[in-house]
Amino acid sequence: MFLLNAKDKTPLYRQLYQQLRHKILNGELSSQTKLLSSRKLSQELRISRNTVDMAYQQLLSEGYILGKPRSGYYVETLHNTIIPTFMESTQLESPSEVPDPIKYNFKYGKLSPHAFPFSQWQRLTNECLRNYQEQLLDYHSFMGELGLRKEILKYLRDYRDIKCTVDQVLITSGTEHCLSLACELLKSVTSTIAIEEPGYAGAHFAFKNHGFCIQPITISHHGLNVKELHTSAAKAVYVTPSHQFPTGRIMSITRRLRLAEWAYEHNAFIIEDDYSSHLRYDVKPISSLQGLAPDKVIYIGSFSKILLPSLRVAYMVLPKELAQIIHKTAESRACAVPFMIQKPLELFLQEGHFESHVRKTLRHLKKKHETLIYELQENFGDTISITGMNAGLHLLLQVKLPVSAEDLIAWAAKAGVYIPIKNRIWIDSEPSPYPSILLGFGGIALEDIPPAIRILREVWLDHI
Amino acid sequence: MFLLNAKDKTPLYRQLYQQLRHKILNGELSSQTKLLSSRKLSQELRISRNTVDMAYQQLLSEGYILGKPRSGYYVETLHNTIIPTFMESTQLESPSEVPDPIKYNFKYGKLSPHAFPFSQWQRLTNECLRNYQEQLLDYHSFMGELGLRKEILKYLRDYRDIKCTVDQVLITSGTEHCLSLACELLKSVTSTIAIEEPGYAGAHFAFKNHGFCIQPITISHHGLNVKELHTSAAKAVYVTPSHQFPTGRIMSITRRLRLAEWAYEHNAFIIEDDYSSHLRYDVKPISSLQGLAPDKVIYIGSFSKILLPSLRVAYMVLPKELAQIIHKTAESRACAVPFMIQKPLELFLQEGHFESHVRKTLRHLKKKHETLIYELQENFGDTISITGMNAGLHLLLQVKLPVSAEDLIAWAAKAGVYIPIKNRIWIDSEPSPYPSILLGFGGIALEDIPPAIRILREVWLDHI
Repeated sequence: MFLLNAKDKTPLYRQLYQQLRHKILNGELSSQTKLLSSRKLSQELRISRNTVDMAYQQLLSEGYILGKPRSGYYVETLHNTIIPTFMESTQLESPSEVPDPIKYNFKYGKLSPHAFPFSQWQRLTNECLRNYQEQLLDYHSFMGELGLRKEILKYLRDYRDIKCTVDQVLITSGTEHCLSLACELLKSVTSTIAIEEPGYAGAHFAFKNHGFCIQPITISHHGLNVKELHTSAAKAVYVTPSHQFPTGRIMSITRRLRLAEWAYEHNAFIIEDDYSSHLRYDVKPISSLQGLAPDKVIYIGSFSKILLPSLRVAYMVLPKELAQIIHKTAESRACAVPFMIQKPLELFLQEGHFESHVRKTLRHLKKKHETLIYELQENFGDTISITGMNAGLHLLLQVKLPVSAEDLIAWAAKAGVYIPIKNRIWIDSEPSPYPSILLGFGGIALEDIPPAIRILREVWLDHI
Repeated sequence: MFLLNAKDKTPLYRQLYQQLRHKILNGELSSQTKLLSSRKLSQELRISRNTVDMAYQQLLSEGYILGKPRSGYYVETLHNTIIPTFMESTQLESPSEVPDPIKYNFKYGKLSPHAFPFSQWQRLTNECLRNYQEQLLDYHSFMGELGLRKEILKYLRDYRDIKCTVDQVLITSGTEHCLSLACELLKSVTSTIAIEEPGYAGAHFAFKNHGFCIQPITISHHGLNVKELHTSAAKAVYVTPSHQFPTGRIMSITRRLRLAEWAYEHNAFIIEDDYSSHLRYDVKPISSLQGLAPDKVIYIGSFSKILLPSLRVAYMVLPKELAQIIHKTAESRACAVPFMIQKPLELFLQEGHFESHVRKTLRHLKKKHETLIYELQENFGDTISITGMNAGLHLLLQVKLPVSAEDLIAWAAKAGVYIPIKNRIWIDSEPSPYPSILLGFGGIALEDIPPAIRILREVWLDHI
């Protein structure tokens, strides 16, 4: 009647409990059946009485059986119409492709090993685990650690001309989290959000996911065509003015002023995603749009590109009006970023390591950026046109060959060169007749760039 | 005309850039004004020509000035109607109360120092930073690390009778994140979500914040009154069946079956929040509702109560149908939990430390739980009735005195005993005529319980 195995990992009491439970649920032990006393059952099964008692106790507290004083335990009257599935369920299908081995990796967003100060971070984490135990054992403010927010604010004031106070700074677990909070704040303002065309697919996804209508706005050489905004229903717009994704353009001050003007005129908001603000190779970082219109801009920044993508720390600067709304909800919420990430990051900034890290990283990336452009021009000449130069972690190529981007990516993959499949960046159809390719250069080593590009030339031009 | 200070932290080129920018924006330098050549300006200001060039270059790339070949730089025609605010903005008001010094802390959710294996965690983090650098330098699957998901699944199968495959397990940054994803999945299913009355304010907040109507459902001794669900418009319900928050009751198997039945009948979903599943002091952990109705239950668990509140790791088990929806969105999203948290946690589970940690923690908390109940009964007798016993990190007291909960909390605070102000747990008004108090015992030391309760007796009974 019961199959108990003392060698099983599952304790005996639990085996008994599970089997009794199963029998009750499937009706084998019917309603009001009296159970054997724990003394009798333990003798019968040759297990300790205590084990049986534990199983009965568990069934009792979960309501499977009923205790009657001076009589014993009886099976509860259950109306089980659902018949639970006790089978092991099968795996969801997932595409099981065997990927080609990657020799050279142009994945967007990946960084190379010396990009992150691992041993320094180890030291700071250990410091946090030793000296901040009381804080680690508690929940924390939804806004993020005050110390970290102050350090970020100091940096933003010095380098990005941000105008705000620390109450307007919020720590989040990444750009998606920032966008999701922006959606929360904007849903009472508008039902339509405008985005750049072409633009960042992650933003498009976030807004759609929150139920907003999307209004694509074209961009020209100087940035967003603000005129189109005026005739749209949108009362919010998402832009990447310092380094338009993916074209890499800088929005000119003329456009910025017009955009701010639009926001004031329509009582609208601008989401400024400054995702790669630190990484500018020709000039110094571009001043933020936020500094021009602090009451109208939701500013988003991140440590993913400059420090570590897997760190999951980003930040927002909110207009005062919106910050006050978030403050009101803060007590019902906990911060999403672990304290043992926030505190080391605060110390990293405070001790001045961040600024030197930015300088060092910039020098290194600039070299890779130059080498990549040089190699592309040497190997492909006019066959390729490059946009998105001088900033960030990627270049956008237009390959003037009568083939598809999918083919170019597949041929490269076969030869060991990984090129990311571009997320949909156009909402309407792509206007160019040529395939465009996004090359990330954050993860590839400097010395690997020339051989990787030579392979691309061979496999791409060979196939034509 | 320009005030440059070589001793300032801001580089000279940036001071010049900022002042030129200011003059252009406020119209002092009007449209089409020709700038001095960099040679002349550098002589005039006695700074290097390179510094002036850098400032001009920056203004040029941001579109403030225009270069004309063989002529020089001219101010762009800007229509600045917004007049940016260059003042330092003032701080948002925030309530600046000086709190009473805390000697004994009954804050809910806080843990005591030996609750967490700090040095072990330090070792595992260091291992992660040394051995997983390539992974740290990349973005990760939105679902969370496969290794960690497998370990969690193994644990849930062994201890909570969860029925699922690893594809249905998702790692998140906390219960709020879980609830937010649940809302995302449920918005096409229903516009009304039912919740327990009284219940967890955080869930109430999350659902309201996502635009759902809230339908309170009363609870009786055996748990949710499922009958009320049948007459409501809700097609989703949020429950805490293993340890109802805040009453501490276990939902009986009869009610569970009825609830599952309701879900199948109405094609509805159940959100099972198993927030303190590990912490049961009378019997073993209660089997999950998910195991009874795997196709209908969105299961939520967390490491906050059993490991560390500031770790920010929780998990969900999704019904296959909903998991498939999330899988489709996964490529547009990044995981919210840092890799350097996920990997140590995976190793902690894999090496068996978690199970022994749970046992150790449980023993310790059980002692605190018993001591607290004993001291309350000794000191207050019938003046206090206790609910929510035998599980979790809190007790709910009804204090049979003709005073308000606010007064009780304030008197305790003056005497150095911190009692949390209860979040609103009732949607309709609280039916009891007596004040109710939530005492968290996770953070207080065992030996501090007797003196803390004696103080409460003194200050509370004294005031009457």
